[in-house]
Amino acid sequence: MSEHARTAVETGRDPEIAETATVGKPHGDGSGVTRLGDDATVRGGTIIYADVTAGDRFTTGHQAVVLADCTFGDDVLVGTHATVDGDVTVGSRVSIQTGAYLPPDTVVGDDVFVGPHAVVTNDPYPVREGSEIDGVTVESGASVGANATLLPGLTVGENAFVAAGALVAEDVPPETVAVGVPARHEPLPERLRGGNDLP
Amino acid sequence: MSEHARTAVETGRDPEIAETATVGKPHGDGSGVTRLGDDATVRGGTIIYADVTAGDRFTTGHQAVVLADCTFGDDVLVGTHATVDGDVTVGSRVSIQTGAYLPPDTVVGDDVFVGPHAVVTNDPYPVREGSEIDGVTVESGASVGANATLLPGLTVGENAFVAAGALVAEDVPPETVAVGVPARHEPLPERLRGGNDLP
Amino acid sequence: MSEHARTAVETGRDPEIAETATVGKPHGDGSGVTRLGDDATVRGGTIIYADVTAGDRFTTGHQAVVLADCTFGDDVLVGTHATVDGDVTVGSRVSIQTGAYLPPDTVVGDDVFVGPHAVVTNDPYPVREGSEIDGVTVESGASVGANATLLPGLTVGENAFVAAGALVAEDVPPETVAVGVPARHEPLPERLRGGNDLP
Repeated sequence: MSEHARTAVETGRDPEIAETATVGKPHGDGSGVTRLGDDATVRGGTIIYADVTAGDRFTTGHQAVVLADCTFGDDVLVGTHATVDGDVTVGSRVSIQTGAYLPPDTVVGDDVFVGPHAVVTNDPYPVREGSEIDGVTVESGASVGANATLLPGLTVGENAFVAAGALVAEDVPPETVAVGVPARHEPLPERLRGGNDLP
Repeated sequence: MSEHARTAVETGRDPEIAETATVGKPHGDGSGVTRLGDDATVRGGTIIYADVTAGDRFTTGHQAVVLADCTFGDDVLVGTHATVDGDVTVGSRVSIQTGAYLPPDTVVGDDVFVGPHAVVTNDPYPVREGSEIDGVTVESGASVGANATLLPGLTVGENAFVAAGALVAEDVPPETVAVGVPARHEPLPERLRGGNDLP
Repeated sequence: MSEHARTAVETGRDPEIAETATVGKPHGDGSGVTRLGDDATVRGGTIIYADVTAGDRFTTGHQAVVLADCTFGDDVLVGTHATVDGDVTVGSRVSIQTGAYLPPDTVVGDDVFVGPHAVVTNDPYPVREGSEIDGVTVESGASVGANATLLPGLTVGENAFVAAGALVAEDVPPETVAVGVPARHEPLPERLRGGNDLP
């Protein structure tokens, strides 16, 4: 039986799901329905597990992977080669760019930009005993720059801006910029203020 | 109708295009022909859109993605999991290594090495209002190290060398090395001089 | 003839190999058998070449790529979008997380964690003449953080800990932590000691 045949998906109107995409893939813990809202676009090679819920105009690039128990609002993009690794909650008007990585227990607000190859973590002591998962929260209006790295458990505050290549090791206060390795926090310059205006 | 059936591709002699690759995929803005020169090798899982032109000996790894309106010279490699995100111009004898990312408006000269997971950007103010795309130029003979990040709009000069892990925030003068986060620019050491000799 | 038909694979008991995975893909230099031990799980979209040997409970994510002449011990995970680029030797109880990159000539011990998007290199002078490959060794019990970059030829010592986002330019002594760009080496804090306890 093909992978495609085993899936359970409900979509709104006008879905565009590529033949080489898989939506609603069953997983070990169960196989609930995956629900995509109106005008969903799932591009070729992308795999979305069962038990995923997305609002309207959910769009993916190619070869993205979304594991189970993820929730997305409206107008979310999951870019090419991005991985949303299960148990992730994402708001509306969020762009998760090419190759970005969101591990389990990540929470993302509305109007957030996650730049290309940004890496979020959740494991404070990888391969050490007794480690517990500690997810990152990216609050509404925040932007995470290209190839930035966020350490486990921290919060990027509202409208904060993590610069490209930054290694964020502490909470980023709202309306600040985090720059460098490790990142220091600076006031948000005027040119980075203003409404989020995701295309 | 399968994705493969809808494509329009012209290749030179001796193409090797894997069954699980897609070449000439139509896109929203049109669906011109994709032309690959002689001895093209497109490996399994790779997706190349319509309106792409490549010279001879164009080679991809697996699961690479090349969007529309890209142009490549001769002897170009687009590695496994690399993304060339449309509207990108690349010269000849260029190696775009595993997982590298080139966004729209990137221009790459001849004899360039783009290291594994190098990330080029083009958006100065992501999710801020009125932002315009501002592409990076990598001039001939330059090398961009593994996991380096290049900020929007800058130029990496001829034969310059961006070190692995660098975050490049300003133009890199020709024949210099950019090192660190943010990168400082140093004279090119003797051991990094010499002809480019891509395999 | 389909890619799948051309492969030669031997597995132990209870393999779970997705229909959209390719295992035992022939390559230019030959096409020996690929052998996976008991209880192998190869998820959809993953490509494993010929001449790969893995122990028991070998598991991959989606769209991972493993080129020829790689050897893995028991209980190894190769995560989603990870690339093990041929001629790589990996011990037992190793987790190679999402999007990590291991180039040819990399050697990894037992009980090692390679974090998401960690990038290992092997080419000291890319595109310069006469460069020779010089692989990295990650010794047993070591952990390489998310989005870290390791320069060619170096050794990460036993139980050492490379922090997330670090750029490692020199050997990391055993039982130390490498932090920053470029990484400085510090004694291992007590909280990072203790047995490796990979799930």
